[in-house]
Amino acid sequence: MTPPSAIPDDQTARARVVIEGLTPSIDGGRFKITRVVGDAVAVELDAFAEGQDLIAVELRYRHATDTDWTCLPMRDLGNDRWGAAFTVERLGAHQYTAHAWVDQFGTWRQGLSRNAEAGNDVMVDLLIGAALVRAAAARAPKSTAKQLAAWATELEDTTTPAPDRVTRALDEELGVLCAAHPDLTHATTWARPCVCWGERDRAQFSSWYELFPRSTSTVPGQHGTFADVTARLDEIAQMGFDVLYLPPIHPIGRVARKGRNNSTTAQPGDVGSPWAIGAAEGGHDAIHPELGTLDDLRGLIDAAVDRGIEIALDLALQCAPDHPWVTEHPQWFRARPDGSIQYAENPPKRYQDIYPIDFTTDDWPALWEAVARVVEHWIDAGIRIFRVDNPHTKPFAFWEWLIARIHAAHPEVLFLAEAFTRPKVMRRLAKLGFTQSYTYFAWRNTRDELYGYLTELTQSDLRDYFRPNFWPNTPDILTGYLQTGGRPAFMARLVLAATLSSNYGIYGPAFELCEHTAIAPGSEEYLNSEKYEIKLWNRDADWSLRDFVGRVNRIRHTHPALQRNDTLIFHPTDNPQLLCYSKTDPRHDDRIVCVVNLDPTFTQSGWTELHLDALALDNQPFQVHDLVGDTRAEWRGSRNFIQLDPHVLPAHVFAIRRHVRTEHDFDYFS
Amino acid sequence: MTPPSAIPDDQTARARVVIEGLTPSIDGGRFKITRVVGDAVAVELDAFAEGQDLIAVELRYRHATDTDWTCLPMRDLGNDRWGAAFTVERLGAHQYTAHAWVDQFGTWRQGLSRNAEAGNDVMVDLLIGAALVRAAAARAPKSTAKQLAAWATELEDTTTPAPDRVTRALDEELGVLCAAHPDLTHATTWARPCVCWGERDRAQFSSWYELFPRSTSTVPGQHGTFADVTARLDEIAQMGFDVLYLPPIHPIGRVARKGRNNSTTAQPGDVGSPWAIGAAEGGHDAIHPELGTLDDLRGLIDAAVDRGIEIALDLALQCAPDHPWVTEHPQWFRARPDGSIQYAENPPKRYQDIYPIDFTTDDWPALWEAVARVVEHWIDAGIRIFRVDNPHTKPFAFWEWLIARIHAAHPEVLFLAEAFTRPKVMRRLAKLGFTQSYTYFAWRNTRDELYGYLTELTQSDLRDYFRPNFWPNTPDILTGYLQTGGRPAFMARLVLAATLSSNYGIYGPAFELCEHTAIAPGSEEYLNSEKYEIKLWNRDADWSLRDFVGRVNRIRHTHPALQRNDTLIFHPTDNPQLLCYSKTDPRHDDRIVCVVNLDPTFTQSGWTELHLDALALDNQPFQVHDLVGDTRAEWRGSRNFIQLDPHVLPAHVFAIRRHVRTEHDFDYFS
Repeated sequence: MTPPSAIPDDQTARARVVIEGLTPSIDGGRFKITRVVGDAVAVELDAFAEGQDLIAVELRYRHATDTDWTCLPMRDLGNDRWGAAFTVERLGAHQYTAHAWVDQFGTWRQGLSRNAEAGNDVMVDLLIGAALVRAAAARAPKSTAKQLAAWATELEDTTTPAPDRVTRALDEELGVLCAAHPDLTHATTWARPCVCWGERDRAQFSSWYELFPRSTSTVPGQHGTFADVTARLDEIAQMGFDVLYLPPIHPIGRVARKGRNNSTTAQPGDVGSPWAIGAAEGGHDAIHPELGTLDDLRGLIDAAVDRGIEIALDLALQCAPDHPWVTEHPQWFRARPDGSIQYAENPPKRYQDIYPIDFTTDDWPALWEAVARVVEHWIDAGIRIFRVDNPHTKPFAFWEWLIARIHAAHPEVLFLAEAFTRPKVMRRLAKLGFTQSYTYFAWRNTRDELYGYLTELTQSDLRDYFRPNFWPNTPDILTGYLQTGGRPAFMARLVLAATLSSNYGIYGPAFELCEHTAIAPGSEEYLNSEKYEIKLWNRDADWSLRDFVGRVNRIRHTHPALQRNDTLIFHPTDNPQLLCYSKTDPRHDDRIVCVVNLDPTFTQSGWTELHLDALALDNQPFQVHDLVGDTRAEWRGSRNFIQLDPHVLPAHVFAIRRHVRTEHDFDYFS
Repeated sequence: MTPPSAIPDDQTARARVVIEGLTPSIDGGRFKITRVVGDAVAVELDAFAEGQDLIAVELRYRHATDTDWTCLPMRDLGNDRWGAAFTVERLGAHQYTAHAWVDQFGTWRQGLSRNAEAGNDVMVDLLIGAALVRAAAARAPKSTAKQLAAWATELEDTTTPAPDRVTRALDEELGVLCAAHPDLTHATTWARPCVCWGERDRAQFSSWYELFPRSTSTVPGQHGTFADVTARLDEIAQMGFDVLYLPPIHPIGRVARKGRNNSTTAQPGDVGSPWAIGAAEGGHDAIHPELGTLDDLRGLIDAAVDRGIEIALDLALQCAPDHPWVTEHPQWFRARPDGSIQYAENPPKRYQDIYPIDFTTDDWPALWEAVARVVEHWIDAGIRIFRVDNPHTKPFAFWEWLIARIHAAHPEVLFLAEAFTRPKVMRRLAKLGFTQSYTYFAWRNTRDELYGYLTELTQSDLRDYFRPNFWPNTPDILTGYLQTGGRPAFMARLVLAATLSSNYGIYGPAFELCEHTAIAPGSEEYLNSEKYEIKLWNRDADWSLRDFVGRVNRIRHTHPALQRNDTLIFHPTDNPQLLCYSKTDPRHDDRIVCVVNLDPTFTQSGWTELHLDALALDNQPFQVHDLVGDTRAEWRGSRNFIQLDPHVLPAHVFAIRRHVRTEHDFDYFS
């Protein structure tokens, strides 16, 4: 430790401006914020010097691969707060920082102006100013230097009357020239540059569909193939999804294989859980032989791209007992004193067919490298999105390294964290680089729960690094609400997921077919879960929500307001069963107001109290166009009546249209 | 920059526990928090590992001069938050940090217990446990190691039935022994130790009295001396003050000396402003010849100490034009092109009799050293408190260095910042080491203003580093409220200052004599200000508040609740002219409730709505004893009636006494 009383270095002693409280900054700059390319990053900070001198503050930013900084002047926001914004122009890391210095010329100019106004003698002031201008000239390029030197001579010229020289001194052009060549000798630089990770659009706006490829055959009992999945793409595209996520596609272990309904004794013909990865045919870089070949996968990827869909693979870092790694790298598993390996547990769940990998083994460098090569293998095959299974059971340091390694060569790769765990663990994973995260949405059902959770996600500093992905169901999660609420419950949860969060997904066809039978009372597991068997879904059932899902996704695609979360606002209602909220996109003059009946059984009615200001509305009438039911109404003012019969449509998704638009509608957003 | 994808070092890769969000911590540990010796510092942080393993977290602290850390186990507060508290034992810097690790033995023990309860085979578990116990033995001192080794043998002994071995394995003593010798190989340490500055009591609880020594003679027109000040000490002690602050005691410049009422042309015999420091007789380390000698000052200091009073000097770093430094060190002043030096300004105020010092002169190391020697000179004379004039006009780096330099040898020295400036500048000075700060109190008059300001001071992170000192008046500040409110206004502002803030002060005898005549309408300057002339105060005037001030200060001294600010709570009233608040000290079972009539003209009445919980009261009756008026009443419940005639007493300062006390009264505070 430097003794605190040691004499500081010259720079520390003479840097007069202090910079504090720069935002956005996560944990003092230790972690990145994230933005999509094209987004603005609004940076603010406190800056001030002792005394009365004016200061100048500059925002500096650059892409991490650039050498030069781009500098933007920051604006005085009052109370010693300064602000400026830069736009994320490319994928990858952007650094941003600030520096600040005493504005000697500006301070002098202000003093001269005051003295001249007060009628004080300004002869000496003019000489001081001339010296400052000459100093700026010495820092300027040749042509400007000449111009400034001439100006200095004018200020000194006692043959010109003082008032004329004052006028020259206060000339705006001189101010601009001097400000462009400030004395930065004792400028202060913000301690630690922050980083903004520039992502592609799909990080921020994505609609996921999860499907078991082995259940895509149209022949009962037959194992589906990548070709079968390809045949399903049109239907998925018509439903409006743009990410198709496949559970693990690798060979499935035969040792300790699970039977139907999670039985620990598999019967002949049981296909096992796809998360029990690895068998004689290979491990994480192999494909289950019955699904097809690597070329078949490439074919699927290409066919999907043609329909605007990306294939996401599952990254489940665990091994069946007969995974090749178990014999090839026994040191990557934690052996017990009797030589056995303890199977995985996530209490109260037990995975007898899975061995956990020991990520802090003495041999961790080789293990981590092997995992990175697995990811790179699938990237080579054309995959750019990974849904990561249980990342919260692997060390944080591993994820930070792995994601940085992949992003260094492939900044376009997205990682979705399947971390259903404690809040701070989920946040940490997002800080470490996961693009999106599963959330608690599935269990937030009441108005208070949804309001509280969404406020935390969109109003706290989570908004700067944590992108939620809302799933009403997954193969592991069939909530009580869906089990008992019938088809209206599925509709309401779909609308909530798709409009509250710009990223969302469903596990289908279970979802659109309203599959709701649990294995046991109080359980969230499906009866006859697809995790352990091949299913043949009756996709054309007349209760299918296929068309409804398609309609909702089309609304998302045509309304930019639903492609972001930062403008989410809740509006009061006088009936707690009615949730009312809005999203806006000022750039596209887009406003969406949703009202959802949270009660899947009974018709609910009540009054909403719209925050008109947040919607850029005044007391003139406006049209609400329900994009789901395709009905229109005229509303006026903040109080409006709502009635929703869940058996008809449990939700309104209103586009708001003013009868007369002005260019000032969204002025206050700017 | 390390490429983010570089393979991490072994420690980074294998340290599984994450520590985040340690509090209290100012700007990521860049600045100290402050506490008085004997105070507890309650430290909290987030800590968690991936997966399900238990972790252990330890708070570490030490005095900066110690080598060894003291370690305290931190307690799991839920939601991955951990807490522990340490006590500040000495003056000076204490470092505190935390470290955390996976609790392998505890995790194993929990698993064994679950397995045994579930009736699973535990043979292998016992072997794993034995290995963990042997590993702990290897880290333990010899005697413990032997004990642990024996225990391990027991766990392994297959001749003992498993249930008996499980009982032995779960023995509390074994848990304690293993926890005491954990595997710290991959422990995580908090990034940057924080510092808590341990201060003496007077940093937190002080009652200041400011007085011009030259106005202490009893002979009209005669210059007062240190001996005259000494003669005044009994009166000041009777008023209950414990710090006597003297404006600058140095020789006063003759060049550009100010005359009465801030006139720029002094008349013969005018004594000038004490802040125009330095003349032929000497500068900042000299004493004004008419006040006395250094020995006289020592005599005053000793006499004051006998009465429990400390003398505080003014540190005003500026020079009269005839200060010796101006000729000896011209490079410490900023010369203008015509060789002149611009006098000091603090717009709109002009100090024609004062030159500012250029703290960022090329010769700053010599200047800074000279200033430090000035401070050390007065410390050698026995001074331990400095009131610093306008610190916000000197560079921040200078203050950080100066205070650290002085504190390195004299941690008992206190600095009061006279920084009437922008909020962030005031906060920065506190962060840099100023013990106390002047505030905006003088201009906070309404209930909303006082509530808002006090909430910011006592509920935000300011409470950890910014100690307010409330002054209702100073020689520069005669507020409109005091100018127009009469004697009741002085009484109300005194009670507010003395009870809202544990540190407060008055400028007397102007204050207790209710001096309220301004030099001009709209000005806060006194007419015939003592800054420019010698005054003979009529201290025995029958309207003097001397006794009232003494009563209020005695209440402060006997009530620990008033000696701290952290328990301040406001209670609603139904009349905005009535401000109701309380302070409590659970350790001493002390509760004070104040109600102040903010209207100095009219009687105001209304109902208070006490937060009974915050006062450890229930619905039983309790006594309120007005310590100012010495009246008693019985109240019950939260709603109680108040009526205050400002011309009698504008405030109640109630001690609260429960009729039946239990030892649990303050349980919830612990």
